[in-house]
Amino acid sequence: MGKERQRHLAERFLALHRGPKILMLPNVWDVVSARLFEIEGFPAVATASSAISATLGYPDGEHMRLDENLQVVRRIAECVSIPVSADIEACYAASPEGAAESARLTIEAGAVGINVEDGTGDPSAPLLDTSIQADKITAIRRMANSQGMPLVINARVDVFVVRDIPEAERLDLTLNRAKAYLRAGADCIFVPDMGALDPGLIQSLAEKIEAPLNIIASHKSPSLADLQSLGVARVTLGPRHQRVLLGLLRKMCREWRDEGTFHNLAADALSYAEVNGMFERESNH
Amino acid sequence: MGKERQRHLAERFLALHRGPKILMLPNVWDVVSARLFEIEGFPAVATASSAISATLGYPDGEHMRLDENLQVVRRIAECVSIPVSADIEACYAASPEGAAESARLTIEAGAVGINVEDGTGDPSAPLLDTSIQADKITAIRRMANSQGMPLVINARVDVFVVRDIPEAERLDLTLNRAKAYLRAGADCIFVPDMGALDPGLIQSLAEKIEAPLNIIASHKSPSLADLQSLGVARVTLGPRHQRVLLGLLRKMCREWRDEGTFHNLAADALSYAEVNGMFERESNH
Repeated sequence: MGKERQRHLAERFLALHRGPKILMLPNVWDVVSARLFEIEGFPAVATASSAISATLGYPDGEHMRLDENLQVVRRIAECVSIPVSADIEACYAASPEGAAESARLTIEAGAVGINVEDGTGDPSAPLLDTSIQADKITAIRRMANSQGMPLVINARVDVFVVRDIPEAERLDLTLNRAKAYLRAGADCIFVPDMGALDPGLIQSLAEKIEAPLNIIASHKSPSLADLQSLGVARVTLGPRHQRVLLGLLRKMCREWRDEGTFHNLAADALSYAEVNGMFERESNH
Repeated sequence: MGKERQRHLAERFLALHRGPKILMLPNVWDVVSARLFEIEGFPAVATASSAISATLGYPDGEHMRLDENLQVVRRIAECVSIPVSADIEACYAASPEGAAESARLTIEAGAVGINVEDGTGDPSAPLLDTSIQADKITAIRRMANSQGMPLVINARVDVFVVRDIPEAERLDLTLNRAKAYLRAGADCIFVPDMGALDPGLIQSLAEKIEAPLNIIASHKSPSLADLQSLGVARVTLGPRHQRVLLGLLRKMCREWRDEGTFHNLAADALSYAEVNGMFERESNH
């Protein structure tokens, strides 16, 4: 992708975080899911690393290699005309230099946004030290600035994901981390596992974080309109919808296996022509 | 994959075509779909090239490169313990030597079966000359024999796919081609677009083809038990179930877009632990 076009997409993506309308940013895991959302009118897409991991046969948590992750990101970015944000977990690196290099490769793959999470996956130390995470974000921002690329850095704060942090401390811990990450150069703060929580808490986060707030919606969360009223700027979905599709696939396979019938294939489906038509255009912009 | 293990899988796969029970062989397009069918007890899986093409952003018909196709096949074969058959369309080659080389690479990727089709996708000459196709199959068989690999060659006869062949000529044309392909070394004859056709025709094909017959089932086809009674040996599904999943994804995305609600995420889904658990084992056998 040309650098000018990528810069333009990054600017457009950043502007969507401060537009009049809440940004509904669906997660995708391959080209067909990304193209479907583009065709249906969504202004941008974001990858979900755990969903990509599943398509490639890895458990979640950086078991998939960065180059495998970015190969999927690259192909999505080649095939859609809208901004693509990439989930690269904890940047596959403990050091600021390593994080900046992972982010550089992610830009090279065509992404204009990244997620950087502070959860470690290590039960004995589940959250990275705030200052180390801030240094990683600073290094990523400097690298992007050196390219003149307004990369949208979505800093994920995993405080609400860690089970043994006392309820009463979570809000303040999250706000402290958010502040440090914004000072380090993040554009947006992502607080996952908030979808099911109470509207009051979402509103507190939105009011007290001086930047766009990203939360994950679910069937247990407020509606998009309510989330907008609460001050949320960006709504993602994580891998839940992929798992709903897998739930349907399992249901279908059990009918074939147990009944030997194929009634479930009569369900509403995209036609052969519709699927092919998604890709019959210049695939490299 | 070790050659001994692959040989064993090929033998097991071939035996499934002549077992007491009809072979229900579901099509897959990534690792998670393949693992799901394995976990649910299916004895083998087959890729659908058009479904893989969609995940990678290409229209059907050899627009996806062979190495891209085989990268997916390889990863599936690494992650499942059951036989994997690969759809490599028309072998990405016009010549017997080219077809044999494509098949060699497919074996190298870990597959123990291949589909080889005689449809060209060219409206002015929609079917490859029978003798050229037979020569391709002979070359593939020789290559596989030279490795001592009992590769299961599924020869696809596209007569029923071509619109302007008169109805009355189709059965004989199909039988002639089937005979030539079996003589050339095919193990199984695949006649697509038969699922919706009448049981009498399916039975004629099964009786007159002196080898296992593969057809595609659909919601319009007889049940698995009826297909077995008609003499069918192997039932595949093509990419229809992937398109049903895409139909559900489109329905979900339209709720988010038009209603701003997320009720559809409450549907039956695989859990995070279930999806991760699919891959938490030795991924290379």
